[in-house]
Amino acid sequence: MRSWLVSVSLVCAMAWPATADPEAWYPSKYGAGDTLGAFNELSPERVVAAAGLVKTGKTYRLGVETGRDTPAFGARSFELFAVAHGDGTGATLGANKGSFNDDWMLTWLGIGTQIDGLAHLGIDHVYYNGTPVQEFFQPTGVTKFGTHEFPPIVTRGVLLDVAGHRGVERVPGGEVITKAELQAIQKKQGTPVQAGDVVLLHTGWQALATEDPETFLSTEPGLDGPAATYLASLDVVAVGSDTWALDVLPGPNPEILFPAHQILLAKNGVYILENVQTAELARDGTAPFLFVLGVPRFVGAVQMVINPVAIR
Amino acid sequence: MRSWLVSVSLVCAMAWPATADPEAWYPSKYGAGDTLGAFNELSPERVVAAAGLVKTGKTYRLGVETGRDTPAFGARSFELFAVAHGDGTGATLGANKGSFNDDWMLTWLGIGTQIDGLAHLGIDHVYYNGTPVQEFFQPTGVTKFGTHEFPPIVTRGVLLDVAGHRGVERVPGGEVITKAELQAIQKKQGTPVQAGDVVLLHTGWQALATEDPETFLSTEPGLDGPAATYLASLDVVAVGSDTWALDVLPGPNPEILFPAHQILLAKNGVYILENVQTAELARDGTAPFLFVLGVPRFVGAVQMVINPVAIR
Amino acid sequence: MRSWLVSVSLVCAMAWPATADPEAWYPSKYGAGDTLGAFNELSPERVVAAAGLVKTGKTYRLGVETGRDTPAFGARSFELFAVAHGDGTGATLGANKGSFNDDWMLTWLGIGTQIDGLAHLGIDHVYYNGTPVQEFFQPTGVTKFGTHEFPPIVTRGVLLDVAGHRGVERVPGGEVITKAELQAIQKKQGTPVQAGDVVLLHTGWQALATEDPETFLSTEPGLDGPAATYLASLDVVAVGSDTWALDVLPGPNPEILFPAHQILLAKNGVYILENVQTAELARDGTAPFLFVLGVPRFVGAVQMVINPVAIR
Amino acid sequence: MRSWLVSVSLVCAMAWPATADPEAWYPSKYGAGDTLGAFNELSPERVVAAAGLVKTGKTYRLGVETGRDTPAFGARSFELFAVAHGDGTGATLGANKGSFNDDWMLTWLGIGTQIDGLAHLGIDHVYYNGTPVQEFFQPTGVTKFGTHEFPPIVTRGVLLDVAGHRGVERVPGGEVITKAELQAIQKKQGTPVQAGDVVLLHTGWQALATEDPETFLSTEPGLDGPAATYLASLDVVAVGSDTWALDVLPGPNPEILFPAHQILLAKNGVYILENVQTAELARDGTAPFLFVLGVPRFVGAVQMVINPVAIR
Repeated sequence: MRSWLVSVSLVCAMAWPATADPEAWYPSKYGAGDTLGAFNELSPERVVAAAGLVKTGKTYRLGVETGRDTPAFGARSFELFAVAHGDGTGATLGANKGSFNDDWMLTWLGIGTQIDGLAHLGIDHVYYNGTPVQEFFQPTGVTKFGTHEFPPIVTRGVLLDVAGHRGVERVPGGEVITKAELQAIQKKQGTPVQAGDVVLLHTGWQALATEDPETFLSTEPGLDGPAATYLASLDVVAVGSDTWALDVLPGPNPEILFPAHQILLAKNGVYILENVQTAELARDGTAPFLFVLGVPRFVGAVQMVINPVAIR
Repeated sequence: MRSWLVSVSLVCAMAWPATADPEAWYPSKYGAGDTLGAFNELSPERVVAAAGLVKTGKTYRLGVETGRDTPAFGARSFELFAVAHGDGTGATLGANKGSFNDDWMLTWLGIGTQIDGLAHLGIDHVYYNGTPVQEFFQPTGVTKFGTHEFPPIVTRGVLLDVAGHRGVERVPGGEVITKAELQAIQKKQGTPVQAGDVVLLHTGWQALATEDPETFLSTEPGLDGPAATYLASLDVVAVGSDTWALDVLPGPNPEILFPAHQILLAKNGVYILENVQTAELARDGTAPFLFVLGVPRFVGAVQMVINPVAIR
Repeated sequence: MRSWLVSVSLVCAMAWPATADPEAWYPSKYGAGDTLGAFNELSPERVVAAAGLVKTGKTYRLGVETGRDTPAFGARSFELFAVAHGDGTGATLGANKGSFNDDWMLTWLGIGTQIDGLAHLGIDHVYYNGTPVQEFFQPTGVTKFGTHEFPPIVTRGVLLDVAGHRGVERVPGGEVITKAELQAIQKKQGTPVQAGDVVLLHTGWQALATEDPETFLSTEPGLDGPAATYLASLDVVAVGSDTWALDVLPGPNPEILFPAHQILLAKNGVYILENVQTAELARDGTAPFLFVLGVPRFVGAVQMVINPVAIR
Repeated sequence: MRSWLVSVSLVCAMAWPATADPEAWYPSKYGAGDTLGAFNELSPERVVAAAGLVKTGKTYRLGVETGRDTPAFGARSFELFAVAHGDGTGATLGANKGSFNDDWMLTWLGIGTQIDGLAHLGIDHVYYNGTPVQEFFQPTGVTKFGTHEFPPIVTRGVLLDVAGHRGVERVPGGEVITKAELQAIQKKQGTPVQAGDVVLLHTGWQALATEDPETFLSTEPGLDGPAATYLASLDVVAVGSDTWALDVLPGPNPEILFPAHQILLAKNGVYILENVQTAELARDGTAPFLFVLGVPRFVGAVQMVINPVAIR
């Protein structure tokens, strides 16, 4: 994550004219005290229906690697070390001569395939359901919205193959995936998105993560605000993509940064998945699938590295 | 990781008479070059069959928390920190006033619910399929058997309710779960274990992790060597329990340490899951379930913290 | 960092009436572009004079331990691990059979004996010499005022034995060390503080760090604002104490937090040393000494753990 | 520490014919229970004499930076992060509007200017004074020889300007600095090394650390075994150089690795300083100086990053 790391130029220090949001975005439709957000859309009925989609039994590993070379935003870094048990003398354990290896890592949690919790992004320090950051931020981990509190995410998954729709291998960076395009793709694929779904966008962008990490990070195709609003209106559980930030970069309006993040996470409590490995799924078509994700339960985390599973 | 941390007394420094294993345990039945071990038992057919088990759509979160207070073996520790983006001035991003939080953690990977990869434990520095440690050990992470290389683990799950079988809330520490008992439980439950299954043992022991972490770590019910050999003979993919080490502690023979680990991981390439949260599963009965686990893909890891999902 | 860790209750979230500082405190008397602050008082002449103080050759280790049990403010923590080189087999290096151990640590830098750099504390996000935080704050380390840029700190050291002056073993927590008292002590000891000096206050408080860490952190004797202003007026290089925060806690005015820090660091560029081990120095009297401190040069650090040396 | 990091090819895995050391090297001349090694040579008398060397008051910062780009051996790495206090809203502390920054780092301890403690290198798992590694090695830090136990290192320092002696800017990599050369330099400089001294070798090699880190690590000028034995015979406290490993690399005998380390640390308890910044000292001549080093007291460390001070 060294030489090719592109620090996205975030215009933090400038004073922006206050652009108040005319529409109140809280309390949440799930209730004033709700902290689950779109997880409220998960249900046993939807699980059963999704399990019914399994036909061939082929499984898809939707996680990419999180390693020392994985491109990452900003100052995020990853290190992992294996440790041979013992004092170096080669002594083993017991008459059965056990030897073993342990391991540890220092990692920022927004590297590789990840899920953004609702503590990740807000509007002027106010988060999902109008929750002020002071209510949950602690240096030792968040006390609300922590990813360790997530239920199992089991539901129907729909792949919207944007690249396929456009007849390209890779949607170019900076290309907006609009509401109209999302509607057209669903129609063409015959896979209308339903409430409770996890929607995954395939753009082909993820291949650049290894081929050209600088470009991978400095631009990408993605949603604009209205597209995000549209997806949220479908009552989906999560929106994911094979890009690192879901939002189109650069955005159409240079003064508006990461609007899809704000609309999904903060305004609607819809979860975001990034760096999803959609290539194999897309190669096999666009049939909806059983989506299963158990997020590792590290206490207090804002985001988490994940490896979801798709089953067809 | 606090005052109650019990460092299991491992007799490392003593010289043990060489107890050679009379039976050659490699090459693996999966072939001399195999590194997948029991993952070879995963198959699309078994996935389809397992998906067919889904009736009610109830999902079970099989992971416990991995936090600062999670009891852990030896020197393992965990720390996680949330970081408010920015320089502390409260500046937000863009005219849409984005604010966000990031996070990082330092963690040893064998804390809480975890999966042991085949690089974790060997016999006299030789690991699964006769692989000498020199072939894969690097301080920066293992080059074989890394958990980042795991396929999605999707198959049938069988819960063997040991506590229920004994009519107790919690099987006492030091109690051996024998081959005979495992056979009796399968028979009584009407859930014979099949090839390709993930077997989970419910002992009730996990409750002590929060109630009495010292006792939780210093002893536990578990398998002996023959019970592990028996389970391996069933061609299961993994064996898990709601204890921290699967093996009975203390073992029946004080000179033999962690035999179940050796037999499963090293000799048979069968994966081990520890600290599995089986309580809710057991409360709802012993019907086999769809087991789904996507192990987070941190590169080079020997073990990994996980949060598997069971679906009924 | 354990159960006794007291998180000082900092009233962060409340809105405080804007109390503007009527006197402009920048530019610094050392010049508008200065970043060295009181290091400008170091000089070869003062070094020579200080070296001339060496009579007996007795050296004093002024650093306390920074370990897992060292009491620390807030969420700060420390972990260190030793690693035996190799893959656990006991192989040595070369025909000369070299074996070796390596080590690593994760540590927050404000634990144990430490020096505060000028990036540590400011007034409303403005730091020494009127430097806005945006000018130097980077998540990967500060770009100004970093402790790695410090010159060797070699000068005369003066111990003001506050406990001795009061005829007690330990000055009680909450006791203010006033300007008047500081003047009286210098007079009584016959050790007037001079420009370029490092001043160390001995209160006896450090003993509580091991005896009663909760009390140690929750209160302490220390300076008030006027006392800090007074010391700064003497053109000292640094002020240190055997307490963790130099400021009296609780402060006389509950609305004013850490005023000595602000006055010394931000307004005057005078460095602060905390948790200095002054006991042995005090036991041997109050003769001024040669003070030598080479701060480890970790790049980008705001503060640093140190082990200064006093020589008499 | 990425692309240019050269992992020195250590022949670990091969079996070497046992080359026993015919001369017993323990117990130490300082006594069978001694753990201080050459620190026994420190004395108040020597401190006084060294302080008497101070003439001009010029101070020299002998530490180089330890940062993300500092070349390091093997898998060692360094990361440091600054953290703005608070929850990101910009709230300050108190009516006096305090704002502050904190920091933390993850670092291996053998990076940049460092001191090797006696737990660092041994012979066949036996360390200084015949101490078996089992006596002090713990994963959580060593229980003997820890750098946190060091006394202040205050004594006379002698610079042996090897580059100057050879009339070059930089002694080439692979060049042996022999006993004969060390004797010749002392004679030419008129600075015979005395018992209790810290000896620093200037080769000019350190400049390559930034200019050409790959070469810097892959070879270097340095001592051979006999030169190390010679220096140890002078009863010095420590030997340092402006190279990363003191030993000549590659060594004259490819089967003997790091002999100077073994002879100094293990056989004689003489400390080693690496990556010492000697350039400025050498530029100003070879007059002996007051050497002062307070090693930061991180508990359990094998080695430590340092920033010694020389005063003339």
